Amino acid sequence: MTLQNLWLGVIGAAILVAGAIVLQLNRFDETGVASWYGPGFNGNLTANGEVYDMYEVSAAHKSLPFGSIVRITDLETGKSLVVRINDRGPFVDGRIIDLSYGAARLIGLSGETPRHNGRGITKVGIKVLVKGDGYYVKRPE
Amino acid sequence: MTLQNLWLGVIGAAILVAGAIVLQLNRFDETGVASWYGPGFNGNLTANGEVYDMYEVSAAHKSLPFGSIVRITDLETGKSLVVRINDRGPFVDGRIIDLSYGAARLIGLSGETPRHNGRGITKVGIKVLVKGDGYYVKRPE
Repeated sequence: MTLQNLWLGVIGAAILVAGAIVLQLNRFDETGVASWYGPGFNGNLTANGEVYDMYEVSAAHKSLPFGSIVRITDLETGKSLVVRINDRGPFVDGRIIDLSYGAARLIGLSGETPRHNGRGITKVGIKVLVKGDGYYVKRPE
Repeated sequence: MTLQNLWLGVIGAAILVAGAIVLQLNRFDETGVASWYGPGFNGNLTANGEVYDMYEVSAAHKSLPFGSIVRITDLETGKSLVVRINDRGPFVDGRIIDLSYGAARLIGLSGETPRHNGRGITKVGIKVLVKGDGYYVKRPE
């Protein structure tokens, strides 16, 4: 192996590593802690005016427009699911998304599985698939 | 203009037209008639086990997996909206999608607007944005 070949190899490896870092950075729009909410809110109106059904698959986010569709990936287990944002929250530092009971159960976060040690929270990455139009449900007076 | 230039022009135009046709064909996954359903079903369970709320934005489709996100474009008005498939239907020949009252009102199809002559149906194009995972809501016995 000549010195020139060695240099070409080093440069090639550097480009590959840089590419992998860029891919990784683009993989999620946001990362942080996910929690879930349920029984105390079942039947209440969500922030966009829907009736909250804890058994359905939905989620609360602090700022994404209502109706946004996001893929949530559990960074501890690799499992992911697609949810629709219809509520506001969670209002706890470091938490970025609050899952419905139905969504938490799908991703194994509801406490019925030992995977998360009963803590009911996990580290997740969020990728916005469709940006919502912010629609608020209009009901008759 | 030489004969060669004329031929180049003709070939260029043909390529443009072919491209436009391909774009148009790819614009929608399906086209057909949209209708809407509401009062008689409000509060019933949808085909995927959700509580049907006619004031929310949702839709019934004959075959798309539950949770699929589709953009529906009204071909008479050009208006479009994004809905989530949570029910089965419509079971009438030629109809491809049944909108909730909330969705029908957003797109101007609910009969409160004169746009569709009170027929409550319109020609639409459907584009699947996210294919659903077919999730069925699980409730306690």
